[in-house]
Amino acid sequence: MAYVHGYAARESERLNDQAGALVELLHHDTVYPAGSRVLEAGCGVGAQTITLAANSPDAQFTSIELSPDSLAVAQERVTAPNVTFEQADLFTYEAEPFDHVFVCFVLEHLRDPYAALRRLRGLLKPGGTITVIEGDHGSTYFHPESAAADDAIDCLVKLQSGDAKIGRRLYPLLVEAGFPDTRVSPRMVYVDASKPDLVDGFTLKTFTAMIEGVREAALTAGLIDADRFDQGISDLAATETFSYTFFKAVATRG
Amino acid sequence: MAYVHGYAARESERLNDQAGALVELLHHDTVYPAGSRVLEAGCGVGAQTITLAANSPDAQFTSIELSPDSLAVAQERVTAPNVTFEQADLFTYEAEPFDHVFVCFVLEHLRDPYAALRRLRGLLKPGGTITVIEGDHGSTYFHPESAAADDAIDCLVKLQSGDAKIGRRLYPLLVEAGFPDTRVSPRMVYVDASKPDLVDGFTLKTFTAMIEGVREAALTAGLIDADRFDQGISDLAATETFSYTFFKAVATRG
Repeated sequence: MAYVHGYAARESERLNDQAGALVELLHHDTVYPAGSRVLEAGCGVGAQTITLAANSPDAQFTSIELSPDSLAVAQERVTAPNVTFEQADLFTYEAEPFDHVFVCFVLEHLRDPYAALRRLRGLLKPGGTITVIEGDHGSTYFHPESAAADDAIDCLVKLQSGDAKIGRRLYPLLVEAGFPDTRVSPRMVYVDASKPDLVDGFTLKTFTAMIEGVREAALTAGLIDADRFDQGISDLAATETFSYTFFKAVATRG
Repeated sequence: MAYVHGYAARESERLNDQAGALVELLHHDTVYPAGSRVLEAGCGVGAQTITLAANSPDAQFTSIELSPDSLAVAQERVTAPNVTFEQADLFTYEAEPFDHVFVCFVLEHLRDPYAALRRLRGLLKPGGTITVIEGDHGSTYFHPESAAADDAIDCLVKLQSGDAKIGRRLYPLLVEAGFPDTRVSPRMVYVDASKPDLVDGFTLKTFTAMIEGVREAALTAGLIDADRFDQGISDLAATETFSYTFFKAVATRG
């Protein structure tokens, strides 16, 4: 399984919900100057592209994606005039160096995120910035605690081809890849009943739906039995408080 | 062991360091109006009292503490004219209702935090606020991961007489105790090498020192062997990134 979340229609809706609920938290401080050329590496179904293009209407985005199916969805959704889509693998992509590079929810799926960052560094002009946003499934905790829910989450951690806990590693990864001035800021999502929109939009439709998405793969791989998995999902959906943290790193190519 | 952190001199220094590094993060938004009477329940060695009194110089604080030894340290340290100390147990303390109540790092050590909140509610005027700040040791994660460090942390969780993961429970606890408008905001501390002051002041001198403080108790209780514990401490001290989250709740007595 190259990409554990898959490319199905339901999945594309999930990523859309996630982007909707989290746009402000993750993206409010990403704004590129007029005239700058920005590479979005691994745009997927365009969930972040819409926000990027809207926040920086006078910057020019080149959004590349390996999967033709995802790219087709992105091209359908994103009508902003300042975005050009291209089907390409970031490990072989060649272009004139960009002013800035943006990567979101990509490194966590790669077997060699260090190599990806080295490649992206080569696509960046000196003085340009790289912005990296990734999750960290090990940052998840909730009340009431549930061992079944922990086991269900662990299925995703094991099935994901990259590192599902990469958020906490962004700082050393970027420094080693040649970005010594890296600054990381965590973006924690905390949910309780006083925030019904987040209970629905994040705990249920983003996080729990993402875990639910690996049910078949986890059962097929023999990682868990069906009752235990379903108990975990039901416990997650019933949590009274829920915490998850994304990590955002910004660094300059010196 | 009634209070797992103990009352030794080194401990008082640790709490002092912690308060110093975290003052802004935890307390910047706690300011009481001139003339208001505020109860600080469980002031310990006065680590928070100094900040409270300085941030609200025209409010009057009554800071109560069960331990005479801690209270003596607090009285020595805190010379602000707007603080009155009193040796008292919050479960039996009687006074005219206060305008506001402040509780920090106290509920996590109690066997019945719900009962404590009910008591404190009774000491609060209608329309007054309660502010609660607590940690959550289950919110700790770091890179590189270390099973030995997890085991050492787990010793503190098991030895603490209250609930070392109470942070995530503040919302339901307060709502059940009669504060339906509770608002909880997490205060995450994220540390990497770009913040050497926090590596020293938080990862080493606050968190790792706190875990190290239960070494003897953990060995005596047979929870872990010495080599494993010491490996855990050394792994914690060597972490490249470190995350911990405090939770702050504010609610009004209706």
